Amino acid sequence: MGSDLGASARRIAADVEALTGDRYTSPGPGITRHAYTGEYAATLDYFRAAFEDIGFTVWSDPVGTLVASNVAPGERAFGFGSHCDSNRNGGPWDGTLGVVSALEACRIAGDRLPLRVISFLEEEASGFGQMLLGSRIVLGTVSDEELASYRDERGVPFLEAAAQAGYRPEERARAGEILDGLAGWIELHIEQGRVLQDTGARLGVVEAIAGYVHADLVIDGRADHAGATPMGFRSDAGITAAEAVVELERIVRAHSQDTVGTVGALTFGPGIINVIPGRAEATLDIRSVSGDHEKVYAALSDFVLARAEARGQRSWLRERNRVPATRMDTHVVEALERGAQLSGAPWRRMASGAAHDTQMVARRVPSAMLFVPCRDGISHAPDESADPADAALGVQVMLHAARELLRD
Amino acid sequence: MGSDLGASARRIAADVEALTGDRYTSPGPGITRHAYTGEYAATLDYFRAAFEDIGFTVWSDPVGTLVASNVAPGERAFGFGSHCDSNRNGGPWDGTLGVVSALEACRIAGDRLPLRVISFLEEEASGFGQMLLGSRIVLGTVSDEELASYRDERGVPFLEAAAQAGYRPEERARAGEILDGLAGWIELHIEQGRVLQDTGARLGVVEAIAGYVHADLVIDGRADHAGATPMGFRSDAGITAAEAVVELERIVRAHSQDTVGTVGALTFGPGIINVIPGRAEATLDIRSVSGDHEKVYAALSDFVLARAEARGQRSWLRERNRVPATRMDTHVVEALERGAQLSGAPWRRMASGAAHDTQMVARRVPSAMLFVPCRDGISHAPDESADPADAALGVQVMLHAARELLRD
Repeated sequence: MGSDLGASARRIAADVEALTGDRYTSPGPGITRHAYTGEYAATLDYFRAAFEDIGFTVWSDPVGTLVASNVAPGERAFGFGSHCDSNRNGGPWDGTLGVVSALEACRIAGDRLPLRVISFLEEEASGFGQMLLGSRIVLGTVSDEELASYRDERGVPFLEAAAQAGYRPEERARAGEILDGLAGWIELHIEQGRVLQDTGARLGVVEAIAGYVHADLVIDGRADHAGATPMGFRSDAGITAAEAVVELERIVRAHSQDTVGTVGALTFGPGIINVIPGRAEATLDIRSVSGDHEKVYAALSDFVLARAEARGQRSWLRERNRVPATRMDTHVVEALERGAQLSGAPWRRMASGAAHDTQMVARRVPSAMLFVPCRDGISHAPDESADPADAALGVQVMLHAARELLRD
Repeated sequence: MGSDLGASARRIAADVEALTGDRYTSPGPGITRHAYTGEYAATLDYFRAAFEDIGFTVWSDPVGTLVASNVAPGERAFGFGSHCDSNRNGGPWDGTLGVVSALEACRIAGDRLPLRVISFLEEEASGFGQMLLGSRIVLGTVSDEELASYRDERGVPFLEAAAQAGYRPEERARAGEILDGLAGWIELHIEQGRVLQDTGARLGVVEAIAGYVHADLVIDGRADHAGATPMGFRSDAGITAAEAVVELERIVRAHSQDTVGTVGALTFGPGIINVIPGRAEATLDIRSVSGDHEKVYAALSDFVLARAEARGQRSWLRERNRVPATRMDTHVVEALERGAQLSGAPWRRMASGAAHDTQMVARRVPSAMLFVPCRDGISHAPDESADPADAALGVQVMLHAARELLRD
């Protein structure tokens, strides 16, 4: 099996490397591959060709989720997959490795197991500002009103972009059919943290995925001349927003063991060196497995409201999305653990701080995830890096679990 | 004189109103009129036609500063003027009122006084990121290296933009000739603060202009996944920048009577909801008449350096510009005071917290400024507003001072 693993790792490395090519990313550092762009279509074409090469049939759901299988749609099969969109200036491994590993599992299994691979659309919030958008559409949890309001950076509505890319988003109610008949689901993904690296483990069997709140904080003060407006006469929206950034870190560290809180984007308007910010807009990303993130979010809301009022400003929090923590399926988790144990490699149980499409799939299909280490925990950045040998090991463990669970 | 003042106010109002028309501003709220744009050229054409209508000769310096006079270039004359570029989404009065009032003074004086009006280029930092750029070129304080590095938002170099607009920037060493022979200089401007309104004064005679430091703060941390990176493993550049925003306000309020400090623009990179900011960039604008702004700037630099080091981050401060406070000329100030006293209207001496072209002109020509109130101190914003009657009064006071000083 040693030489098999080496060849498997080389095929995985070759696929990941190929997908860093110019046609699969827009210009700039790292990988930038948003849903419905030319580089995204080229990436789907790459997978389509690879699956057809091994005799799999490839199709799409109504919004462009890619599906490949060696049995007919709806027939009993085991599911593997992830997503292949990236954040802006992200790395080559996040999501893509899960689809590449699923492809590798299919290459190894051939037609000895009924398998279905899914590459979900728009997992990152980068294209339309909504995380897990593709898998949430598949699960039917996105209302028509919400979907109609989503636009990309240039203002193109999601539904228009989907239609322009050649799909039939008006038939999206049927998207859930791609999960029909699935006996189980496993997503392999880089950890995006340092736990595996720091504990010397090569595999992480995920038993829960953190819940999160995504929201936008808006503060309205008054734009005035930066030179001629004494400090006591100002209504500087930027300072209130900055206080919120500092306070979020303080609350998280003071009140929770497992919560993380981030302001990833902050902009001041009009945004000129000699004008006092009349408006500030910040994003909030707060997560935990324990549920503490809800308390942190509430405490931060209270803080911002009080600070804005004290400065005579208006403030709003607009929630984009609120997802509870998700427990993985015990049977799938235990099957993965047996596979990991058989492999002889060091492994551990762990939670996922990051959100994944699997938390949506898990609502309908018994699901779990398998993590492999990434160097220094760096992710969503150009120097994201992982070892194809760990992924090859993960593919063996996924196939072991699928074989066991299909037998039941 | 009452009816004269009324007619004068109506002419001033008509000019300011005309220059809010579509051809004099780019689309969007308020006035946006950056150097060398089509709307800027249209504005210069408006003034050119108005001055030629009253028999004045109009010309330009080598970078596009507009000059109008009723005597030959270089001959003894008294100078009035301001600038007619605006910040992005600014108001109709900032700068423009000074050129309109100078035009009105020329209409009233006819050829009874030798006058020269100057409309300086790029006073706001909006076009090329450099305040007082036009008047600093006229004073010869911008090095060739500096000038070659200035670019507009689309990356077009200043020198290329000047040439494309039809000027001869390679002859800029001669720009200073437009000040030759000036016996004195007065710039009328809206106050951009609330002192006049709150004290019921209609005119402010400016005895000093605050000095300032303009700088960019850059902090480099590490971009990581917002969900999978525990708080203790982060290097969040955004929090360090937010701490600097909060600290600047604290230092200014704690350590100085007359300093103002502003972070007008702050951006996080890559700037996505689920990515920890790997980079933060903030602008700094710190000013005082007393010189305290230098101490505040030094204290903030120390704070940022220490905080960034504590978080394992690199930080830089890049100075854009450093201008000392400027005392106005005693003779011009006193002549304005006598004019204000004669007018019978309430007036006061004051300092200017905002920078003005006059602080550059004052290096070669005995200079002062006259402020008129603006509603609620609002400036650099679409709802900037002033009373043309105050400006008409100011024109009378400017003419009184010019007459007196030309007689000496």
